[in-house]
Amino acid sequence: MTHQIVMNPIDGCTAAAHIAYYFSDTAIIYPITPSSPMAEYIDAWAAAKRLNAFDQVVSVEEMNHEQGAAGAMHGAIAAGALASTYTASQGLLLMIPNLYKMAGEHLPAVLHVAARTIATHSLSIHGDHSDIMAVRQTGVAIVVSPDVQEAMDFAIAAHIAAIKAEHPVIHAFDGFRTSHTIKKVEMINYETIKPFVPFEEIKAFRLKGLNPEHPKAMGSCQGPPVWLQAAEADNSHYNKIEGHFIEAFKDVEKITGRKYEIFEYYGAQDATDIVVLMGSGCITVQETIDYLNAQGQKTGAVLVRLFRPFSINYFISKIPQSVKRICVLDRCKENTATAEPLRQDVVCALIESGRLSKIEKIIGGRYGQSSKDFIPADVVAIFENLKQDKSMDHFVCSINDDVTFKSLARKDELTLVPEGTVQCMFFGQGSDGTVGANKNAIKIIADNTQLFAQGYFDYDSFKAGGLTTSHLRFGPKKIGAEYYVYDSDFTACSQQSYWNKYHTMLVSSCRKGSILLLNTSCKTVEDFNKCMPKNMRAMIAAKNLKLMVMDASDISDKAGLPGRINSAMQTAFFMLSGVLPQDKAIEIWKKTIVKTFKKKGESVVNKNLAQVDATLAAGAVFEVKYPATWGDAPEGEEVKLYTDRTVVGPRNAFLNQEEE
Amino acid sequence: MTHQIVMNPIDGCTAAAHIAYYFSDTAIIYPITPSSPMAEYIDAWAAAKRLNAFDQVVSVEEMNHEQGAAGAMHGAIAAGALASTYTASQGLLLMIPNLYKMAGEHLPAVLHVAARTIATHSLSIHGDHSDIMAVRQTGVAIVVSPDVQEAMDFAIAAHIAAIKAEHPVIHAFDGFRTSHTIKKVEMINYETIKPFVPFEEIKAFRLKGLNPEHPKAMGSCQGPPVWLQAAEADNSHYNKIEGHFIEAFKDVEKITGRKYEIFEYYGAQDATDIVVLMGSGCITVQETIDYLNAQGQKTGAVLVRLFRPFSINYFISKIPQSVKRICVLDRCKENTATAEPLRQDVVCALIESGRLSKIEKIIGGRYGQSSKDFIPADVVAIFENLKQDKSMDHFVCSINDDVTFKSLARKDELTLVPEGTVQCMFFGQGSDGTVGANKNAIKIIADNTQLFAQGYFDYDSFKAGGLTTSHLRFGPKKIGAEYYVYDSDFTACSQQSYWNKYHTMLVSSCRKGSILLLNTSCKTVEDFNKCMPKNMRAMIAAKNLKLMVMDASDISDKAGLPGRINSAMQTAFFMLSGVLPQDKAIEIWKKTIVKTFKKKGESVVNKNLAQVDATLAAGAVFEVKYPATWGDAPEGEEVKLYTDRTVVGPRNAFLNQEEE
Repeated sequence: MTHQIVMNPIDGCTAAAHIAYYFSDTAIIYPITPSSPMAEYIDAWAAAKRLNAFDQVVSVEEMNHEQGAAGAMHGAIAAGALASTYTASQGLLLMIPNLYKMAGEHLPAVLHVAARTIATHSLSIHGDHSDIMAVRQTGVAIVVSPDVQEAMDFAIAAHIAAIKAEHPVIHAFDGFRTSHTIKKVEMINYETIKPFVPFEEIKAFRLKGLNPEHPKAMGSCQGPPVWLQAAEADNSHYNKIEGHFIEAFKDVEKITGRKYEIFEYYGAQDATDIVVLMGSGCITVQETIDYLNAQGQKTGAVLVRLFRPFSINYFISKIPQSVKRICVLDRCKENTATAEPLRQDVVCALIESGRLSKIEKIIGGRYGQSSKDFIPADVVAIFENLKQDKSMDHFVCSINDDVTFKSLARKDELTLVPEGTVQCMFFGQGSDGTVGANKNAIKIIADNTQLFAQGYFDYDSFKAGGLTTSHLRFGPKKIGAEYYVYDSDFTACSQQSYWNKYHTMLVSSCRKGSILLLNTSCKTVEDFNKCMPKNMRAMIAAKNLKLMVMDASDISDKAGLPGRINSAMQTAFFMLSGVLPQDKAIEIWKKTIVKTFKKKGESVVNKNLAQVDATLAAGAVFEVKYPATWGDAPEGEEVKLYTDRTVVGPRNAFLNQEEE
Repeated sequence: MTHQIVMNPIDGCTAAAHIAYYFSDTAIIYPITPSSPMAEYIDAWAAAKRLNAFDQVVSVEEMNHEQGAAGAMHGAIAAGALASTYTASQGLLLMIPNLYKMAGEHLPAVLHVAARTIATHSLSIHGDHSDIMAVRQTGVAIVVSPDVQEAMDFAIAAHIAAIKAEHPVIHAFDGFRTSHTIKKVEMINYETIKPFVPFEEIKAFRLKGLNPEHPKAMGSCQGPPVWLQAAEADNSHYNKIEGHFIEAFKDVEKITGRKYEIFEYYGAQDATDIVVLMGSGCITVQETIDYLNAQGQKTGAVLVRLFRPFSINYFISKIPQSVKRICVLDRCKENTATAEPLRQDVVCALIESGRLSKIEKIIGGRYGQSSKDFIPADVVAIFENLKQDKSMDHFVCSINDDVTFKSLARKDELTLVPEGTVQCMFFGQGSDGTVGANKNAIKIIADNTQLFAQGYFDYDSFKAGGLTTSHLRFGPKKIGAEYYVYDSDFTACSQQSYWNKYHTMLVSSCRKGSILLLNTSCKTVEDFNKCMPKNMRAMIAAKNLKLMVMDASDISDKAGLPGRINSAMQTAFFMLSGVLPQDKAIEIWKKTIVKTFKKKGESVVNKNLAQVDATLAAGAVFEVKYPATWGDAPEGEEVKLYTDRTVVGPRNAFLNQEEE
């Protein structure tokens, strides 16, 4: 199918919501981080009278909590309305009773889940698969997309399969890593989808709904004489679900040209060592497999797309005959089980299929809980461990676990981005405008160039007032790299207060010889000698960074917007980063400022534009030529050049309590 | 330890609640079938000022729903109060978010769960393990007791281990089959337990509680930099839980003389074929293993007591070296997983320990969902299937599944009760007093003889108005037989209306030559020829039943208690069953009536006593000598002698709509 390709920089929530809206009569919402944007977009589009597949505006109902949302969704769909919701973590947990019922009653509800850590020893707003795994026993189908484009593509499959299989479906993707990462992806036009909407099946579904015109009983009670028989009679219903997803993915291929399967294999066809995983980690694994196989290794991965129902035959068919060793990676931790959940399924599939006899080793490990960054160096360590005579089992990635010694040391800090990719990092403070300005920058670059773009924004749970790090990549080729920027070409820090607290993280993020832009009132080497921690100076010199300086706070003060430094900082980014020609960049940047702030009045627009001009003025942004002696260790001290950012201590939101 | 043994006929809920009360400062309740009696007993004991281990009356709080109960329990225990609750099924599901938190925060809450089916295609109030399995990933410890005595004994272990391990514990037992079965068990005196209450640890626990005198923070937020590290640091906490249960079971042995382990082995030490399971099904398996091994087979079972944390080493150590084939039995169904949950753990344990290499076959099946009766004939079929060259995998027990053909046909209808056991069945109508009278009968027999006693009461979900069947056993030896009575020595039916609807079930329950007592206005063979279905008459004659008749309805009418026929029926039971000498039985029965009804006034007492005397009067209960021709099939018809009661159709609560 040919269609005009429109590429937009959007996040995973937008991608999934774009499809959910089209397939829903009613959206039942109770926003919870990181799924909230889905509910918010759906609500906004309904307010803007966007039309769904049935040429109607979606009815949006916000409930009292997620349990209420689940009940309302259950009721709506029992009455023949196509219903969807958007949730995560504890929100999903509150829906569990209804999930069992909707599965048992064959109701095609769709839940889009921005998978998030379940609170245990502490709460976390960040992402992992513990919430998905907490509902794996409910009977609901679970399909997991690894990236923003797939969040849109798999959403189509989820809705079509739900209707055709007459079964509830959870479409999950990684919280923050996919839900909030902005990527330039292909927008799928509703008209392109329309021929694939199963209108006949939807009609049949509506006719079966509860209706006073043709009443029927639902939600009966059964006891020992018949309950089990009815449950077993359901086998034939469940046996068909897998086939509906296979078909739905074929529909998606016809719509988008992109081919997906319920399990996919990536890597060497003669691989000896493979991993099995699902979610955004797949992309990091795929890039590392390319890197390792280019060095002569024989590695691969089975990428789980349809986790429930888990098709043993399809899964086994994807494992090359040459495979000797398998490592299963779970993005969650089950302290009391024999093994993490995905591994349990893989082990059972191997043994039941008889395939285990050809496998020498099957182990597993954990990674990425609460959005712990999962990087190529972890994947290298995983494959290295797998081929050892004595592999560590039940390991954990990415940390130095000195309590029970289950961690795999990272081997290298690889960043496997395509050639020509520019990587940028911004250290800001929650609500100081840094993230918003960065999102604008991505949009400007994505809309006005052929460049691919990626933006990931790392908040702590405090959101406002806490540290935010923005990780931006731009380049001529599609960007995977589902992890932080580790060797930034351009790094900006908007807060001088961070020099004491975060300088290790800040400077170690910079590629050697790259640009570091600081917002500071320091102007001279003498100023810096007084204000900047000795070790930070040493690190800057050791990395030979180009130290650029501006007093954005002064600029924003003078423009009459004290504290709102983002327009000035972003202008400097366009001046220094070289992602776009400066003149063109500034022209679009000014237009964007007008568009962004016009709701707040002409005065705000002008104050922001004044900041742009002040930043462009000669001498506003200048290089500080520091002495080579900055790189010398102070008497009796060693210069510490941290490269492993995991050793940085807990972030402290109380930024006023600065400590060295 | 020596102590006076007091044997009482109680149900599993009473057994667990007896211990829970002793170990609780506060009981947070929201009753749900079949856990409700626990909450009700605790509430009643608190009202009666019973004292707990701290010489205080337990504070009982009823909340708005189970989610509220979980939150209140979480709060109470965070403040240093020992808290417990009692729930099941959807109630347990609503507690899931708090379960994760309490595990993560190391809080020793104890939940006693009468395990019940989760509603899917329909609701069921009956028992299986789907609710326990739905919380297996929460981190909470789960210990499962197989019978009423263990419900008391394991409750002690659960509370002690919770305190010592500083961890929440679910103590589960099978809904109805254990929660509501009355058995004569040893009551454990609080004074006997007292030396084993970990007062030192409790003191330390209280000191750590939230307290304005020494404030501390709880329920923090963590993000990517530290969440995973904290989760991994918890490994050492989780690693110790198993040991605390091993020790707690040793304490229980010191208290009771009964030895328990976290996994137990039963059967031949040179077994080739074993099953793995947990809950009340263990007892049926154990009895069948004795039967099979007595015939020269080499069978065995690993009985799972501590399901979470699942100790791979302990489990493997219990499997004899001779074992070649393993079948895992799950009392639940997970339609979308590679295998049911207990099987997943067993498979992972076998492969990780290296023990799999010695095992030729590992398969699994489902049984007993929604209290589907699980009988020795099922266990025979399971072992027979296991030793076939081509064993059926993912089978289901006890039914004839003609949809996807996954059922194992039952081989025999064995009842493996000790010699001398008298089995009785009562067909009553919900709220007609039959169940209550039977409970009184058990109490009378248990209290006044050395006989062991068992009573199981099968309700449908309608409770009032639906069919109730009471399954009673009395005998000189301890009674296992965790299933219905299938060959009753004495069977009574209180409703003539059942003759049409349930005669197949009624008559096929009777042992050949046994007594069938009917409440009916029919008196003569001619009356029966008119009113009794032809097939029922044929079945009665074919089984050569002794047909006893009484008009209990007339007796209750004349006594001024129309419809309350239970005092009359129960009198006839004592007259005919021979479990107790008649004179002694009637004397105690009358005393019991006085005790039972005295709250309702002298008039009610006297009306019930009048029924006893009227029943004892000459001619009130008499035998009907039916002709041998009753056993002849009508012209052109075959007499159907059903023995498999699972083929009896759905019970219909609308008893007025009688159909042949």
